Amino acid sequence: MTALASALLNPRRIALVGASADPARLTARAQIYLRKHGFDGALYPVNPRAATVLGETSYASIADIPGPVDLAYLLLGTEHVEGVIADVAAKGIPVAAILADGFAEAGPEGQARQARLLATARAAGVRILGPNSMGLINLNSRTACSVNAALEAESLPAGRLALVSQSGSMLGAIMARGAARGLGFSHLISTGNEADLTASEIAGLLVDDPQVDAILLFLEAIRRADLLAEAARRAHAAGKPIIAYKLGRSAFGAELANSHTGALAGSDAAADAFFRAHGIARVTMIEALLEAPALFIGRRPLAAPKRAVSVMTTTGGGGAMAVDALGVAGIETRAPNETAVEGLKAAGLPHHGRMIDVTLAGTRADKVQAALSALASDPDTDLALSVIGSSAQFRPHDAVAGILGAARAGLAKPVAAFLVPQADVSLRMLGEAGIPAFRTPESCADVIRAFLDWRAPAPVQEASAIPHALPVRPDEADARRLFAALGLESGFAVMAGPADLPEGLRFPVALKILSPDLAHKTEVGGVALGIPDAAALRAEAEAMAARVASRAPGARITGFLVQPMAKGLAEAILGFRRDPETGPMVLVGAGGVMAELHRDTALRCAPVGIEQARAMIAEVKGLLPLSGWRGLPRGDLEALARAIVAASRLAALPEVAEAEINPLIIHAEGQGVTVADAWVVRA
Amino acid sequence: MTALASALLNPRRIALVGASADPARLTARAQIYLRKHGFDGALYPVNPRAATVLGETSYASIADIPGPVDLAYLLLGTEHVEGVIADVAAKGIPVAAILADGFAEAGPEGQARQARLLATARAAGVRILGPNSMGLINLNSRTACSVNAALEAESLPAGRLALVSQSGSMLGAIMARGAARGLGFSHLISTGNEADLTASEIAGLLVDDPQVDAILLFLEAIRRADLLAEAARRAHAAGKPIIAYKLGRSAFGAELANSHTGALAGSDAAADAFFRAHGIARVTMIEALLEAPALFIGRRPLAAPKRAVSVMTTTGGGGAMAVDALGVAGIETRAPNETAVEGLKAAGLPHHGRMIDVTLAGTRADKVQAALSALASDPDTDLALSVIGSSAQFRPHDAVAGILGAARAGLAKPVAAFLVPQADVSLRMLGEAGIPAFRTPESCADVIRAFLDWRAPAPVQEASAIPHALPVRPDEADARRLFAALGLESGFAVMAGPADLPEGLRFPVALKILSPDLAHKTEVGGVALGIPDAAALRAEAEAMAARVASRAPGARITGFLVQPMAKGLAEAILGFRRDPETGPMVLVGAGGVMAELHRDTALRCAPVGIEQARAMIAEVKGLLPLSGWRGLPRGDLEALARAIVAASRLAALPEVAEAEINPLIIHAEGQGVTVADAWVVRA
Repeated sequence: MTALASALLNPRRIALVGASADPARLTARAQIYLRKHGFDGALYPVNPRAATVLGETSYASIADIPGPVDLAYLLLGTEHVEGVIADVAAKGIPVAAILADGFAEAGPEGQARQARLLATARAAGVRILGPNSMGLINLNSRTACSVNAALEAESLPAGRLALVSQSGSMLGAIMARGAARGLGFSHLISTGNEADLTASEIAGLLVDDPQVDAILLFLEAIRRADLLAEAARRAHAAGKPIIAYKLGRSAFGAELANSHTGALAGSDAAADAFFRAHGIARVTMIEALLEAPALFIGRRPLAAPKRAVSVMTTTGGGGAMAVDALGVAGIETRAPNETAVEGLKAAGLPHHGRMIDVTLAGTRADKVQAALSALASDPDTDLALSVIGSSAQFRPHDAVAGILGAARAGLAKPVAAFLVPQADVSLRMLGEAGIPAFRTPESCADVIRAFLDWRAPAPVQEASAIPHALPVRPDEADARRLFAALGLESGFAVMAGPADLPEGLRFPVALKILSPDLAHKTEVGGVALGIPDAAALRAEAEAMAARVASRAPGARITGFLVQPMAKGLAEAILGFRRDPETGPMVLVGAGGVMAELHRDTALRCAPVGIEQARAMIAEVKGLLPLSGWRGLPRGDLEALARAIVAASRLAALPEVAEAEINPLIIHAEGQGVTVADAWVVRA
Repeated sequence: MTALASALLNPRRIALVGASADPARLTARAQIYLRKHGFDGALYPVNPRAATVLGETSYASIADIPGPVDLAYLLLGTEHVEGVIADVAAKGIPVAAILADGFAEAGPEGQARQARLLATARAAGVRILGPNSMGLINLNSRTACSVNAALEAESLPAGRLALVSQSGSMLGAIMARGAARGLGFSHLISTGNEADLTASEIAGLLVDDPQVDAILLFLEAIRRADLLAEAARRAHAAGKPIIAYKLGRSAFGAELANSHTGALAGSDAAADAFFRAHGIARVTMIEALLEAPALFIGRRPLAAPKRAVSVMTTTGGGGAMAVDALGVAGIETRAPNETAVEGLKAAGLPHHGRMIDVTLAGTRADKVQAALSALASDPDTDLALSVIGSSAQFRPHDAVAGILGAARAGLAKPVAAFLVPQADVSLRMLGEAGIPAFRTPESCADVIRAFLDWRAPAPVQEASAIPHALPVRPDEADARRLFAALGLESGFAVMAGPADLPEGLRFPVALKILSPDLAHKTEVGGVALGIPDAAALRAEAEAMAARVASRAPGARITGFLVQPMAKGLAEAILGFRRDPETGPMVLVGAGGVMAELHRDTALRCAPVGIEQARAMIAEVKGLLPLSGWRGLPRGDLEALARAIVAASRLAALPEVAEAEINPLIIHAEGQGVTVADAWVVRA
């Protein structure tokens, strides 16, 4: 374990710099909680105004502490933080956690303060957790180095779940909710503003920690997406799931999450694409973050999920709620196949219908175990769900015994339970046994959906260098040349002026003004369609030059672009951009107003391979008619897939900030695609 | 109170027919639970094989019971139920609740059995609850006349919430989950198969019960929509909210909910439209069904909701979760306006930003109350939400005191709380005080969304009689004549044969074969477009007659339909149908393949008025371009609205099962709409 990892994940010698001698103060809490929860390492309160702090020897300065220190938790006021970094460095302490707020989340002044702090720390060789960090907790080592009030709890179960949270208060809330469910944590780390250490980097450290089975992330923003991607790849190799809850699914939430931490917001769709590409499961309900790990731990992403489950129930209404919620999440509850029916019959159980309603037999452990074994033998479903009614409330041992037995028997697929009544004891028993157990039909569906959406990290695409020079202010011809360099040719010619007629034109043609300054050519009369011959082309170019000069007198004109008129079966939009959080993204959507109104697009981390491009096309509803739907003529979706791959290669050209082809005309199968318009923006 | 109402809602003399003397049997439970929970009325076990049952005098038959009886709970086996109805009637008992299953939910044989039972009961003048009913509970009268295992609980809080559940097991689960939250029930009634008494009818009885403040419905299917609509109208007048959770949001859930009870499934969109039209609030999460009443009770639907809330929080991450979940539900968290800012300033509280983060001040009751008072003074939001962090777990009295104070102060808008940590005591305190309190950000958003979607029952539209005779097997001309009778004229002419050329045609025209047997005219060559003149029309009619005769030799040909060619700005689809659960519905959608792929439609209970029709148009994304979006030409959406009103009047014509105009061509503003194709199906 590196010095950084051991300082962050299991510090044994902790300096509490600015620890208050007044137990009512926030800055006294870390010391109180460390002792309360049984920390048996060395604790060094640093407080020049007291000889002892809460009964322990206090030190006037960090330099006065005898022997080495793993971690300094700076409990000082905002103004005093930066000044003490030199002392931390001089003492050779690898990490300083910082409680104070008033940094990047506090406007331009705070941002400047954070930048200075970071520069000082980097220069001194000290890593920073925070600022605005509630600290860190290792429950196996009884190290509650945190001011989070959730540590008021008398005891907290230790376990093998690690949580990294950008919200300090959610750290405590998740720990408390988990404790009530019998879920123990190994680590809980509050990263605050992430001036230096990010949840991404810490996730990477946790992958290597033998105390950890699963890594949970509570995220407001993704920072250092590269480190998170690498952590996820290594987590997959190590068989440790990473499960994320991320704010920002709505515009208001995104604004808030980012104003809270001073980061620039990426799009939620990009975050989704990023998680999926890198094998990180995402839940959308906070309770699902706690309920998910038991389903993921010890399992690999399914190579070919059926998106179907088997359901047995002791309660018709409760079972129907689960089936309905799963259905809303796009997961089918499937009737048992022949093998499963044989197993159910042999156990003397009902075996008809989409959901197996065992009613009274559901209170007998042997029957429940037999039913789950039978359902798990069905190769057509991904998971066997047991829905338990009132016995879960009044006879918890009986209610969960069959499920425990089935889980111990090592069935061919996961077994999970949804408990319909108020069933705190049963939930805790299942939680402690590591069996996925759900308190609501909605979180049940969210977790199972996340599990079936979970994929192994996508193969790394070669982001091969593109030997192409892009002008500082590119016009449409430059954009087309760029796409051509990526392998997406478009037939066009450039005219320097009205008299500069190109040879070999196939009429009719379209004529467009070329200018790096005109994003909307049509509005200034800069587009003419269906020009029949050379004479008309020259005349139109002259008229267009005059029109544009009068309507947009300031625009620099770089010439004219001529392209053959093209008509295909349909239009698509193909785009590339760099998300501020998650990096290069490629987008494909159906063309036209309707598709825009319905936000009918698919997004992936760029670059993508041809298989991923095909999967993107399959996601866009508006492209469905081109795949032979209802006997409509097929479009050249393979050419579209190749175009997506080509555009996604822009990831390797850092000077491209954004680029788009809109529309991209899709011709009949085998006839390719035509670039009708294109633009590119430099970073 | 009617005999029916008092028998169902507060029975004082109960016969338990078939009560078992073996306390381990299901059929012994009603007696055990009645006594356990303190029933002090008269109890009459009927069991011919025992002199006493569980220590109480038993009767050999219903006739032997001394004095009158309010309710008979039949605990007999399936085969014995029908035979005892005559005894119930002879004794003058108004209602028999029936536990047995094996009726409509059990295939054709069970359906026949249920039909016989119902006929017997109707003839005898006995009302039936069930079969497959878990019984009924009145907690204020300590009447636990049910076999539901949730009654194993030592005590259950009485209160003013009534629950009617089609699922017997959910009755118990909801009661138990409510009890843990400090929510007491007045009534819990399990309607089972609803052979006779429906949740709809019982909701109507509960409206008149002075013990009841709110009516909760757990529904698998809507039966007797007419009675539910009437109950909802009276509930609105009485100021009692009706809040529904209904299965069937997914296709699998709908199938299951209906197979479970033997009903024919309506569509979920129709159920949504029905609830909204009649002032019934619908929640989509089961926990929201419990959390909603406190927000609805004592309040009326907002006349003009802003779909915006004010949020204060003691925890940034927890508050952001609520803001995000609300945003996903389409509800904005809005920064305080000037008035609210003044109030916050006066209380020495933070007042910046979309969400007011009071942090440590949030643990002081006076500060919280002042903050909520300030936020409630803001006229731009509908509700003030307090998000509470760790204090809700460790200092519940402090944490909820400010909210209790604000609620007692009678603010101008509702106050609610979302509790972020594990906070069972705080939740119970708020529940007991009748203050809306949420356990998850998702149920918080679901309840507030349901509250802001809640509308007063729509004004009853006059379903004026339509003096129009529809042939038994209508063709397209009949469908057009029907729509014309409703006020939606379409220019067309009918030709009896190729030689029967109509006068005064405006060429070019379209020609279509007329046949009640051909749903898809194009496929048999029965449509010809753009016919330029009379000669071509005659020739085309001859060719068409020959084509259709050869391709569809069995189809009865009733002539030809001629209509002028029309081209508009866009196309719509306009439909009418009768939902098996909720009755007549009118639908409008954008035309074309894209709209179909995106299911871009709006649905309402028919008939509708012009305002409702305009609201429907505004819901359809694909019609947005016709309203002047991005400078596109405006379509005649007023004519479309009138067409919707006209089509919706089919509700008054019971012989029409379904009708559709597809496409309905929409012309430019002021130019009207054109019926391009139409069909109608008789009931």
